[in-house]
Amino acid sequence: MKTYIEPKVLKGFRDFLPPTESVRRSLIENIENTFRSFGFLPIDTPALEYSEILLGKGGGETEKQIYRFKDKGERDVALRFDLTVPFARFVALHRGELTFPFKRYHIGKVWRGENTQRGRYREFTQCDFDIIGCDSPASDFEIILLIHSTFLNLGLDVTIHVNHRGLFNKFLEYIGQSGKSVEVLRTVDKLSKVGKEETLKSLAELTDSATAQKILEFIGLKGSFSEILERLKELSGGLSPEAERLALLKQYMTDATGCPEPFVLAPSITRGLDYYTGVVFETFLTELPDIGSICSGGRYDNLAGLYSKEKDSISGVGTSIGLDRLLAALESLEKLPAVNNHAAAIACIDAEKSGLYQALAKKLRGAGVSCEVFLVPEKQLVKQFVLAEKKGLRFVIIPGENPLISDITLRDLSSRQNTVLSLEDVIKKLK
Amino acid sequence: MKTYIEPKVLKGFRDFLPPTESVRRSLIENIENTFRSFGFLPIDTPALEYSEILLGKGGGETEKQIYRFKDKGERDVALRFDLTVPFARFVALHRGELTFPFKRYHIGKVWRGENTQRGRYREFTQCDFDIIGCDSPASDFEIILLIHSTFLNLGLDVTIHVNHRGLFNKFLEYIGQSGKSVEVLRTVDKLSKVGKEETLKSLAELTDSATAQKILEFIGLKGSFSEILERLKELSGGLSPEAERLALLKQYMTDATGCPEPFVLAPSITRGLDYYTGVVFETFLTELPDIGSICSGGRYDNLAGLYSKEKDSISGVGTSIGLDRLLAALESLEKLPAVNNHAAAIACIDAEKSGLYQALAKKLRGAGVSCEVFLVPEKQLVKQFVLAEKKGLRFVIIPGENPLISDITLRDLSSRQNTVLSLEDVIKKLK
Repeated sequence: MKTYIEPKVLKGFRDFLPPTESVRRSLIENIENTFRSFGFLPIDTPALEYSEILLGKGGGETEKQIYRFKDKGERDVALRFDLTVPFARFVALHRGELTFPFKRYHIGKVWRGENTQRGRYREFTQCDFDIIGCDSPASDFEIILLIHSTFLNLGLDVTIHVNHRGLFNKFLEYIGQSGKSVEVLRTVDKLSKVGKEETLKSLAELTDSATAQKILEFIGLKGSFSEILERLKELSGGLSPEAERLALLKQYMTDATGCPEPFVLAPSITRGLDYYTGVVFETFLTELPDIGSICSGGRYDNLAGLYSKEKDSISGVGTSIGLDRLLAALESLEKLPAVNNHAAAIACIDAEKSGLYQALAKKLRGAGVSCEVFLVPEKQLVKQFVLAEKKGLRFVIIPGENPLISDITLRDLSSRQNTVLSLEDVIKKLK
Repeated sequence: MKTYIEPKVLKGFRDFLPPTESVRRSLIENIENTFRSFGFLPIDTPALEYSEILLGKGGGETEKQIYRFKDKGERDVALRFDLTVPFARFVALHRGELTFPFKRYHIGKVWRGENTQRGRYREFTQCDFDIIGCDSPASDFEIILLIHSTFLNLGLDVTIHVNHRGLFNKFLEYIGQSGKSVEVLRTVDKLSKVGKEETLKSLAELTDSATAQKILEFIGLKGSFSEILERLKELSGGLSPEAERLALLKQYMTDATGCPEPFVLAPSITRGLDYYTGVVFETFLTELPDIGSICSGGRYDNLAGLYSKEKDSISGVGTSIGLDRLLAALESLEKLPAVNNHAAAIACIDAEKSGLYQALAKKLRGAGVSCEVFLVPEKQLVKQFVLAEKKGLRFVIIPGENPLISDITLRDLSSRQNTVLSLEDVIKKLK
């Protein structure tokens, strides 16, 4: 009796067939080219690590979602759930081998046992990029400019909302509420979810109603970059290194791109629950702002602190692009990157000539033209045209009689036209 | 008190720092370009699958090495240990969506809890390529030609040893030993390990000494492709479809490349313990034959049978390149693929000008020149030269005074020469 196992994939996991996988790889190549043009270099880390390392001080959501188990050597191991924690461990372990400032990117899969009902996947791809070992405003700016360039090279206009985590702290201090900063941040973070009224009420309970008003004013400031910055300075007690840093970012953007346009100063971005300590930012697609930030990040202190015995900390600035979400956005905007798959196949008329068809293919490949060789002999050309169409190809090359490379017939499947050409002209046409 | 977690990776797992990861990515790109030039398209499958699917009829070595655990939903899951089993499941699941013959490649990580003392890794990368849904000799040949081209494009000469699994069976039948084919194959498979004498003894015990001699003659035949093929035909009772198929392969290779040179007919390749049923092959580096076959494969029947209710089977032919082993071989031959990392950095003289430095970088990037912008202001240029050298860069671009793009000084760190150039000349020089 034959055994039969039902072919299925785990919930939240996906197969990628050639049409989708080709697009994914094009997208990664495009992103990677931008990263590399900025001098960022790739790293990779294991999919599997000690759970202790991945969970860190951990617990909470991470603990619930992580794929964790005992390996055959009874080690407590887990699949990485992001690329940030492995990077922190990586930096602690290889500190002596790295040259700082260290600019790296890391594109890889991560795994989280999330609730798939929210349309989330349990296996997904992240593209992280960071500069570490450098505290200069120029490095904050470079990450932001790299975000801008990455999306621009994908044909996407973005608006980058920036703020400084420290400026909000300064403001809380100035109005005498620094002792309650954690609670205030937590409340303010829910603004977009619960609405203005509710937030005001919660803040008033936490402080008093005048203070609550002031906090909401700070968070809700509207206007040009300079106008908001001026008001932020006033509200937080005047000029500060934090305000200066924001002003520098704007100047750098103007100098680098000719206009400060991609920038919005958004005091509502506090990212209160994250580990950021300096400049923070969120990125919105101009054509699809409603899907929310597609690339958030900021400056953090002491990246590798948990894994380091050394006392001197390594600060950095960085961010992450979720590939799957970006792909969905590009798809709905009909801006998927072009795929450079082969467009032509050599017809197989006579099985005996299979080696000669490959010789012809070799000439085309040598000239930079990718092409497939059909493998099943079929005298009726129309059947080969149908196969080529099913495969999404545009051209069928019908070799000449003798020799094959004289009088090649090129079938254009889109115009349904045959043209008799020399090899050189076929190459010209297909290139 | 500060918590401290020792930064370490699991035994058999590795971090890849930029110099290594850059080379790995170049290598993958090179291989992928060859695959695509032949019209092979990429797919991907999940890292994690149901254990039942991955283990199949399984047991044995696989069972011992697989990373298997219960997920939070109590599903019995495991990390893929190769790309073949997931491909079989993939084909069964997506049969209706694929166009046959289906030519695909799959480059991805796989995980095995192997004994690391033998220099093996527990996480490693495989590059699989197969043609399925096609039984023609032309498809056997295309896989072999693709092996040949892939290594050639990496600057590696290879010899491909081919045989036909069925021809050995025919021979055993002809000498009346087909009932013992499994035992004979198992014995013969150990030839290179245990030596001729020992094999002869084992075979004689299994059959008789005259038959043992005959089997060893069959396995050990030497000579040109044609000479061996003639003798194989004689030993297996004359002309057969299997012998004809081997003859065709040789004709195709001669037609396609102008010479049959990359080919050796090697009756000793039986791959008796694998699931191959037709043509089988192994690939040896001309300059490093002793490391053994770096790309083995063959034709198989009924790839997706275990996961299919349909009775009609899908046959195919395919093979796999182990990236890590190939990388080690390229390294010892000093033939690592060139890495197209950036070669230049823009010096940072004045922090105020950071935006302008990025504007200059943008001009270079727009012209196709990747470059890094240094982020820490340093008036002493020599310190910037030292940093660039530590980063493995060759050039430092020192912007002009005002405007930055006039009178750029280009420092060539290898010749220690400074040249004053226009932006256009800098681009020409760095391209």
